[in-house]
Amino acid sequence: MFDRLSRIAESLRRQNLSALMCCRPVNVLACTGYWPVVGNSIAIVTREGQIGLLVPEDELELTRDIAMSTVRAFTPATLQDLAPVTERILRPLRELALSLGCAKGRFGHDVGACVEPATYAASFDFGASLPCILEAAVKASGLVDLSDCLATIRAVLDEGEIEMVRDACKAAAAGFQAAAGRITAGMPERRVSLILSDCISEGANRPRSGAFGFCMSGPNSAEAYRAYQMPGLRTLHEQDTALLHVNSFIEGYWTDITRTYSLGPVQPAVKRVQSAVLEATRAAIDAIRPGVAACEVDTAARYVMDKAGYKEQFKHATGHGVGLAAIDHNARPRIHPRSNEVLERGMVFNVEPAAYFPGEFGVRQCNVVVVTETGCELLTDFDSSINELTLEEHR
Amino acid sequence: MFDRLSRIAESLRRQNLSALMCCRPVNVLACTGYWPVVGNSIAIVTREGQIGLLVPEDELELTRDIAMSTVRAFTPATLQDLAPVTERILRPLRELALSLGCAKGRFGHDVGACVEPATYAASFDFGASLPCILEAAVKASGLVDLSDCLATIRAVLDEGEIEMVRDACKAAAAGFQAAAGRITAGMPERRVSLILSDCISEGANRPRSGAFGFCMSGPNSAEAYRAYQMPGLRTLHEQDTALLHVNSFIEGYWTDITRTYSLGPVQPAVKRVQSAVLEATRAAIDAIRPGVAACEVDTAARYVMDKAGYKEQFKHATGHGVGLAAIDHNARPRIHPRSNEVLERGMVFNVEPAAYFPGEFGVRQCNVVVVTETGCELLTDFDSSINELTLEEHR
Repeated sequence: MFDRLSRIAESLRRQNLSALMCCRPVNVLACTGYWPVVGNSIAIVTREGQIGLLVPEDELELTRDIAMSTVRAFTPATLQDLAPVTERILRPLRELALSLGCAKGRFGHDVGACVEPATYAASFDFGASLPCILEAAVKASGLVDLSDCLATIRAVLDEGEIEMVRDACKAAAAGFQAAAGRITAGMPERRVSLILSDCISEGANRPRSGAFGFCMSGPNSAEAYRAYQMPGLRTLHEQDTALLHVNSFIEGYWTDITRTYSLGPVQPAVKRVQSAVLEATRAAIDAIRPGVAACEVDTAARYVMDKAGYKEQFKHATGHGVGLAAIDHNARPRIHPRSNEVLERGMVFNVEPAAYFPGEFGVRQCNVVVVTETGCELLTDFDSSINELTLEEHR
Repeated sequence: MFDRLSRIAESLRRQNLSALMCCRPVNVLACTGYWPVVGNSIAIVTREGQIGLLVPEDELELTRDIAMSTVRAFTPATLQDLAPVTERILRPLRELALSLGCAKGRFGHDVGACVEPATYAASFDFGASLPCILEAAVKASGLVDLSDCLATIRAVLDEGEIEMVRDACKAAAAGFQAAAGRITAGMPERRVSLILSDCISEGANRPRSGAFGFCMSGPNSAEAYRAYQMPGLRTLHEQDTALLHVNSFIEGYWTDITRTYSLGPVQPAVKRVQSAVLEATRAAIDAIRPGVAACEVDTAARYVMDKAGYKEQFKHATGHGVGLAAIDHNARPRIHPRSNEVLERGMVFNVEPAAYFPGEFGVRQCNVVVVTETGCELLTDFDSSINELTLEEHR
């Protein structure tokens, strides 16, 4: 995180800004190590690299393990009046800024477009009120949207963060394996999804962890290329492929993993696709090392899929940033044919070659990797082939 | 929804605006009946009350049951380039605006602060890019933030929407009852939470439904007044109270329900609190009818709690809007001592008297009601008293 803060401070100095004041949970986490629950926290990073964090009082105890210079709490609501958060936060924010010596000048913020992982059942979003808050709380003589700059800086994770993603991937791997033993023909997709979510959540065994599991089966698995999965009431049948996708998290660090299973023996057509997907995965992984352009990793996977005759069926990019992002096709690094991003040590992303055959089936294996000094580490080293699930009908 | 659109159109005419262009999923749902998944949809309501909806192509099939004038799709990403959504959406948005006859003028938008229920594992947020999009896509000669106006308009639900919340509450009630039969001493809070979530999700039995279940037990239940619940690794013991809170949804319509259970026989101190909480609930419900100030409902409940000696322990407002909101203490109507909002037929909110005793236990019963012509309908008419859970140790 030290390196990330240096990059932010450098960017602030280059643009002649006093400080960054950001409110998106993903940016607060990236700057402070604290992942807001409700969404009404604000993080400050000064051009000297000092950090401040303002959280609602309910969340104060959750910040106790965060190594920070200055943490303050504010009261978002009382029984005495109905003043909104955007008003209540003004004075505490000014005081925090004063204590950090950045209560006037030009400020960076993060109110541009962003994809944000879910932090809770519902979450507060400052939206465009943040610039108004900054103008009222500190004497802002200028405001600059640093959303894009932060998106780039979020791409590289430090050792502690990688360890969190590693743990999340381990819990997910154990969850996939436990779930595979419980899924049988006759279950509806929604039930399979819940089993998968539960197995991963229970394995993580930390208060702030959880999983969004999705099962797309038979012809529905051919629709899994979409930007979202939506398991339905369809029940799993013999010879179905079952594409199991998960976004799971531990304390704000996310996985993005898919495994494709077969209900009973794998059909020959599915087996052929699976071979190509595995070969494409290996080709992509072999191409990963610091200094390589992200588009080359995409090319490595895409070449294999094209050669195997699945050019049209591999409909999406080979991968995107994961870790601080859950599912965001625009998260850096984008492993995309047109991406000029260059891989760096500490970048975490997924590798997800796939082929989708409308009305028939889809196969995707989505793995998470981290770029190391000489190549990459596979964080999801389990069950790479299509595993067979039992056909025994569920009671 | 017709009434809501009339209110929006009226508000547009009053402020001399051509149309509302909103992007927050809760507002898109409120205007069109479609609940976006990924978050990159935009809804248009013209001053003549016409409706337009622009969705990513992946979500087009989900809009098929929506009674709309004009639905268009756009392509948020391709393999050919890396242009962001904020660029890709410009032309389709202009075309949609042209077809609705509102491609220039002054526009309302919704980029102010807002609490948004989770639509997916991660979601796109236009943030402050929406005003820029409007200036580029349509000839915006002025922009007005209607976030607050929309928050007020969202407070009243139409018959079809109330039916959705009723269904969601029914599924939740069945889920609570099924879960209660499976929860035993010895289970950790996190496992109880998953059981509760699963029981409700399975009961809802529709593709776009789900539940966020939370169990806070023993002394942890005294912390449940917070703006979030965070079940931990603590296991349930004999004589514990177990406060089970749920936010569940069906197709964008949310519940907010709490029941407090006892592990074995209810302790006398807990029983006394429970009596006060039930009496406060009845008093609040008796006070509800169109024309009544929201603060009077709060007063009715608070008077009972004060009289019973739990003034300090009833730390939060009596309720807030539910349905289009999940958990948002600022959702209208606010059943708060200082709320001057006036109840109208069709308003849906929760009634949640409670008392929290730090280090000991907390009791809350949170119900959902809808204001009817003469009073209110209780949508969560089940297990109002503290039920006993079995003490049998879980294997």
